[in-house]
Amino acid sequence: MDHLKKLSFHNVEITGGFWKARQDLNRNTTIYAVRDRFEDTWRFKAFNFGYKEGGDEPKPHFFWDSDVAKWIESVADIIDKHPDPVLEAKVEEIIDCVEAHQDANGYFNIYHTVVEPESRFKYQDHHELYCLGHFIEAGVAYYEATGKDRLLKLLDKYIDLVIEAFVTEKTAAFDVPGHEEIELALYRLYECRPEKKYLDLANYFIDKRGTDPAALGDWCNSSYLQNHKPVRQQKDAMGHCVRACYLYSGMADEARLNEDGEMLDTLRALFDDITKRKMYITGGIGSTHIGEAFTIPYDLPNDTAYAETCAAISLAFFANRMKDMEPDAKYADAVEKTMFNGVLSGLSLDGKAFFYENPLEINLADRRRLTANTGGERFPITQRKEVFDCSCCPPNVTRFLAAIGDTVFSYDDDRICLHQYMPCEANVAGARVTVETEYPLDGKVKIAVCGAKGKKLYLRIPGWCSEFTCCAAYKNERGYAVIEIDADEFKVCADFHIAPVLVAADSRVRADACKVAVMYGPIVYCAEGVDNPGVELADARVLRGGMITAEFSPEFDCPVLSVPATASAGEYPGAALYAAIGEQKRRQLALKLIPYFAFANRGESDMRVWLGV
Amino acid sequence: MDHLKKLSFHNVEITGGFWKARQDLNRNTTIYAVRDRFEDTWRFKAFNFGYKEGGDEPKPHFFWDSDVAKWIESVADIIDKHPDPVLEAKVEEIIDCVEAHQDANGYFNIYHTVVEPESRFKYQDHHELYCLGHFIEAGVAYYEATGKDRLLKLLDKYIDLVIEAFVTEKTAAFDVPGHEEIELALYRLYECRPEKKYLDLANYFIDKRGTDPAALGDWCNSSYLQNHKPVRQQKDAMGHCVRACYLYSGMADEARLNEDGEMLDTLRALFDDITKRKMYITGGIGSTHIGEAFTIPYDLPNDTAYAETCAAISLAFFANRMKDMEPDAKYADAVEKTMFNGVLSGLSLDGKAFFYENPLEINLADRRRLTANTGGERFPITQRKEVFDCSCCPPNVTRFLAAIGDTVFSYDDDRICLHQYMPCEANVAGARVTVETEYPLDGKVKIAVCGAKGKKLYLRIPGWCSEFTCCAAYKNERGYAVIEIDADEFKVCADFHIAPVLVAADSRVRADACKVAVMYGPIVYCAEGVDNPGVELADARVLRGGMITAEFSPEFDCPVLSVPATASAGEYPGAALYAAIGEQKRRQLALKLIPYFAFANRGESDMRVWLGV
Repeated sequence: MDHLKKLSFHNVEITGGFWKARQDLNRNTTIYAVRDRFEDTWRFKAFNFGYKEGGDEPKPHFFWDSDVAKWIESVADIIDKHPDPVLEAKVEEIIDCVEAHQDANGYFNIYHTVVEPESRFKYQDHHELYCLGHFIEAGVAYYEATGKDRLLKLLDKYIDLVIEAFVTEKTAAFDVPGHEEIELALYRLYECRPEKKYLDLANYFIDKRGTDPAALGDWCNSSYLQNHKPVRQQKDAMGHCVRACYLYSGMADEARLNEDGEMLDTLRALFDDITKRKMYITGGIGSTHIGEAFTIPYDLPNDTAYAETCAAISLAFFANRMKDMEPDAKYADAVEKTMFNGVLSGLSLDGKAFFYENPLEINLADRRRLTANTGGERFPITQRKEVFDCSCCPPNVTRFLAAIGDTVFSYDDDRICLHQYMPCEANVAGARVTVETEYPLDGKVKIAVCGAKGKKLYLRIPGWCSEFTCCAAYKNERGYAVIEIDADEFKVCADFHIAPVLVAADSRVRADACKVAVMYGPIVYCAEGVDNPGVELADARVLRGGMITAEFSPEFDCPVLSVPATASAGEYPGAALYAAIGEQKRRQLALKLIPYFAFANRGESDMRVWLGV
Repeated sequence: MDHLKKLSFHNVEITGGFWKARQDLNRNTTIYAVRDRFEDTWRFKAFNFGYKEGGDEPKPHFFWDSDVAKWIESVADIIDKHPDPVLEAKVEEIIDCVEAHQDANGYFNIYHTVVEPESRFKYQDHHELYCLGHFIEAGVAYYEATGKDRLLKLLDKYIDLVIEAFVTEKTAAFDVPGHEEIELALYRLYECRPEKKYLDLANYFIDKRGTDPAALGDWCNSSYLQNHKPVRQQKDAMGHCVRACYLYSGMADEARLNEDGEMLDTLRALFDDITKRKMYITGGIGSTHIGEAFTIPYDLPNDTAYAETCAAISLAFFANRMKDMEPDAKYADAVEKTMFNGVLSGLSLDGKAFFYENPLEINLADRRRLTANTGGERFPITQRKEVFDCSCCPPNVTRFLAAIGDTVFSYDDDRICLHQYMPCEANVAGARVTVETEYPLDGKVKIAVCGAKGKKLYLRIPGWCSEFTCCAAYKNERGYAVIEIDADEFKVCADFHIAPVLVAADSRVRADACKVAVMYGPIVYCAEGVDNPGVELADARVLRGGMITAEFSPEFDCPVLSVPATASAGEYPGAALYAAIGEQKRRQLALKLIPYFAFANRGESDMRVWLGV
């Protein structure tokens, strides 16, 4: 097992470009938009524990604590570099509430205090440990950003109670969390404050899972919560995707911290199972809304895709952890795929609205079909919303964007690894690294490294890149260009040539058979009806070998593409429903494609990633 | 309005070929197989009215009467030309039961006598009038075959009761049948026994429908039963397909018998709406299992197609009526399309098992997906069954096959019209017509007409036919070759050249976009996994312009086709899920295609009508 060290975003200053623009939007707009909707929906006010049955306050849900915790974590990551007294005061106010309403024994959960105090640690699907996990992450982030550890101290007491209820006294009615999250949070806490009890509890939950398979109820089976067998025996990604990848992230922490080679083998299998058989081209995962879950290999329907925003984020978390134990470019490739596509599509261009599900195809006619009869099929919504009843995705997007610097580097005594390309300045174990690039608009990257002579620089060659040039000698090591840093003031330039590419899926992916997707560097494109009036998108065929042109669009902060294609001329032979091939008149045209992440920003429209060819 | 006369199958002797083989199978096997399953399932025994709550007999369903009635009609049509004392005795036994258990006031319905006698004519969805309609059809058929009118006399009394309950006294709790059928049955009875009360009652139900829109309950709306507006205003085919086309058939009878031009206009619109926007290439109708119903134009999903066997039959009934009011080849084309495809697929090659639903695509992986999670999507079954809880389709197939001669001719004083091609001898208003052909194996047809000098012979030029030759001069009149019969012993030969053809759908049919179907004459073909091992059918692409070869298969009594195509070589570049186009290795191969009607006769298999191109 390799032992690269993570480089926290605290050490990485993103200085411009694509991701800085998103971080600015996140800081200036999204974090406030989420706050406002959480105010509207009583998620903050619930922390005053004022709910009473029959009163005016809405009943808190048992996962509201986690929504707020993720928002706190996002604030912490933002104020780390951009102090904001308003946001910080709000966090302090919430911590005041925690302090005021925490039980003497350490317990803290709004729902299980004001609604069902009698059923604490009774229902495996009630998210108490999930909420605690998110509060632990928030506490760590807030401490790292501000040095204030009041929240961590409060949580320490709660963790002691959890140890008692689940490990020593076993008074809890179930053995492991119904929704994983606390595992990775405890490892994170342990790395921040290395108390053995945190590590032990995390290990306990990881090792215990699946040893006594149980489901949450009749509506799911034990694999829904990855509880069907001991985790080291789980080689197929199964069940609820977010639960799964939060677990796999925790397992990756376990493998790294405990030098657990058997666990690493399992994680390799799980990663390959996801990325080679169960992942959309956008990095989205979850082929069905039923259980928000993985299904079977190569089952990746586009119109009914679930591909939850949180699931793409969870896959990024998992992949980003793998790259440090085993520097293979496929891991950072997966992180990049999710960042630019399946995660970013979860946020509107104005920064205020969110997708929970991220379909790869919208056919508005399907909605008309639904209204033609009663009930039946289910499709994702077609427009983003500002808040959801289950509003896990919005604050997950804000924390992901705020901490995106976590994905860029890792290092050890001999190596500096650059995994994601964005203009930045970083302190990597004392060396100063500067990256200049317009990536992903252009693949040229200039890297300057000061104070690392004798080490090696690892540059990821993106999986989508077929033409790579570098001004220095390099050797390819599992997808990384490895370059000797032979000067104190070392400079190197690389070019990951970016041009529009037609991509096909494995022929076993039935939903994409006989179709292509168009990519530009890491960015997946899509055709929207609004840009292609009068074209039946399902019937359009991209011309192989046609010259695709790209033009920068300020609206999308990305190129839009013009793709030579044919489509029905809209004239039908005698209006026959079926006619010999050749009788249908077709016309040549240029399909306009926009980045997938930008779909559904201009009203309801048909949309399609996979196009006929 | 034209006034061609129907020529009953009583006057047509099918002498050989494709349909004679099916009629022989129907007579020797299927009619007995249905009888045996109806015995097993208590459908016959229920006519003894022995059911008691808490007893051993299963509770009869309120549509069981109709299943048996259709079986009686089938027997009648069979014994018309092939006496069978066993079958006839069974029919007599059932009529004995009707006579024994009919109420003094004429009422007859098993369910509403032994289970819910208190709710007669109370629930619009309880099929009492539907059952009576089928009994009327059975009574007419049995009388026409045997001259015995005992059943018709019994039913006459019941019809009087219906007139009282629905028209004169209006004691019934609803105004029109929830499932149409009695309308066409009453017109049929009227043409057999021209009593004005039959015509009046049929007209009453037709005219009344939709004047007081009502649904059957919360689970459907009024269009489900074509009750949303007066029938002459219904220009879009809506709701439950079998109900719809039984109604439209009744409306066609009404238009013809009452010289109702407004109704004919409506029927033209409905026919075009179905055949140009809502019909599968197989002649199947019904895009969703939800309400077994039409949806919206061009919504024709293949894997979840409902396409009930009864619905294809009902469309054939409707189209076959239209051809006599308006001799346009499109009507008989639709009849032919359903006969060879969407109806015939409902019956197994051994004549013993049935499809209720007839999908155009089976992906067995979808079933594995379903078992990977709880509940969710619904797909048609993949193998035929001998009987269903709702077993309407099996006896509908038997009666359709037994009376298929009904589709062949029509006539008047000046014209003899030949609509469907099969070897036969017919008495057409005194003229003797002999047809010799191997159609649909070969398109050559020889027709001899004796005793019709001075009349015109109309030969339908099938819609699928692009190359037609005839040894006589003809002019084309709405898809018919019109030929002068200039001799007492007139002979003519025609050739509707049959060759494999690639067919495309209207580009608005999203499910078929960028795909082709292969037809051989009127027969739609499909690829089954069992014939194409190792080929991902979804990923196969037919080569345009490739030479398709046909070879006769005794197993299917039809050619099988060998279609040049490409498919994935099953080698994946580095096992990447997505890769630049061109990296995927493909191989050339010949897809084996079999007639669609013969699919699912060799075990579970993937199947696909629409193929990539």
